[in-house]
Amino acid sequence: MNDVSTPQFAALKDLLGLICYGQLAAFGRLAAQSADAPDLARRALMSQLAAAELAPYRRLAKRLVELEITPEDAMAPFVAPLDAYHDSTRPADWLEALVKAYIGDGIADDFYREIANLLDDPDRSLVLEVLHERALAEFAVEHVRDAIAAEDGRGDQLALWARRLVGEAVTQTQRVAEKNPALAGLIASADNAPNGLGELIKRLVTSHTARMRALGLSN
Amino acid sequence: MNDVSTPQFAALKDLLGLICYGQLAAFGRLAAQSADAPDLARRALMSQLAAAELAPYRRLAKRLVELEITPEDAMAPFVAPLDAYHDSTRPADWLEALVKAYIGDGIADDFYREIANLLDDPDRSLVLEVLHERALAEFAVEHVRDAIAAEDGRGDQLALWARRLVGEAVTQTQRVAEKNPALAGLIASADNAPNGLGELIKRLVTSHTARMRALGLSN
Repeated sequence: MNDVSTPQFAALKDLLGLICYGQLAAFGRLAAQSADAPDLARRALMSQLAAAELAPYRRLAKRLVELEITPEDAMAPFVAPLDAYHDSTRPADWLEALVKAYIGDGIADDFYREIANLLDDPDRSLVLEVLHERALAEFAVEHVRDAIAAEDGRGDQLALWARRLVGEAVTQTQRVAEKNPALAGLIASADNAPNGLGELIKRLVTSHTARMRALGLSN
Repeated sequence: MNDVSTPQFAALKDLLGLICYGQLAAFGRLAAQSADAPDLARRALMSQLAAAELAPYRRLAKRLVELEITPEDAMAPFVAPLDAYHDSTRPADWLEALVKAYIGDGIADDFYREIANLLDDPDRSLVLEVLHERALAEFAVEHVRDAIAAEDGRGDQLALWARRLVGEAVTQTQRVAEKNPALAGLIASADNAPNGLGELIKRLVTSHTARMRALGLSN
């Protein structure tokens, strides 16, 4: 039995709701972007990137139902910050959408993983496993590297775009933590993070830098 | 080894390309529609209906690559008729989109299944298996029945909509058969269809009537 009155349970509900809405929102944005792909091959790739966002959604929504939490209730607090992130980072073209999928999902996954590590099993394992399966975004790397090699100046422009993405992602991460005390409390309670959220964000930015290098973008 | 010069091979390429583009197009339309869902629960449902369209795409595109056919080449002849079908049947709201997913996919699947039955294995089994897995659309039935029960006149309006869908689907099926001689030849060669396409369309309409009843709609 879960003790539904504990801060741990509230933080679990928040994390599952956050990931669920994050995936649902990413699905909608990527799927819409797929219509603008320059050809059928890239339209198929983007469509599959979008669909891959829903596998975590399904598994975690099922877990919420098991915990007797309505997925929509768990997602509701995260609609505003995630929609704000997406509204402020609308890709101008197909390549920006691809960079956003890779960079944005990467930061989000790192954030979810950090929090999942503070949960008890079976939820800790479930979230880590679900995130581990989201490997399709790696396909993006090859396409972006090819595009940068083919067009002068594209690398600089995409590097600028990626910097904007990380800035907006950090802003919304802080907003999510501030507005959801159970999550913030869990983060602050971590042994390895005396400074809580600040330390966590530093680690997010370090991992982001590695992804920038993978794309062939300067930081 | 496949003999690439046979009409059978050309018809296989056509069928796999047709299903692949059909799924890709259905994905894009349903995904776009999910943004207009009246709440998060229905947005999640429609998103999952959309994503389910891509499982057949992935498996059949992989098969095309095995056959040394570029999926985009196989899909190309079907872009115009399928886009015409979707352009002429734009759902006015979420419920029409749900009916379209159920009715439209049902007719398409029946058509694909009829042709698959005329192929040799392993492709016959592959196509039938892939189509069999597309059970998510069945979820639509419950939602549509509930909506009809809740609102006077909605059933009549949706029945009219479904009749338009079947009319457009039959028109585009005929167009696909006319413009793709390998497919038309395969259909005409069937033992059980001396009248070829005409008989096939009669069977499609019979199955459609059963789906209308499942939705609680008069034909």
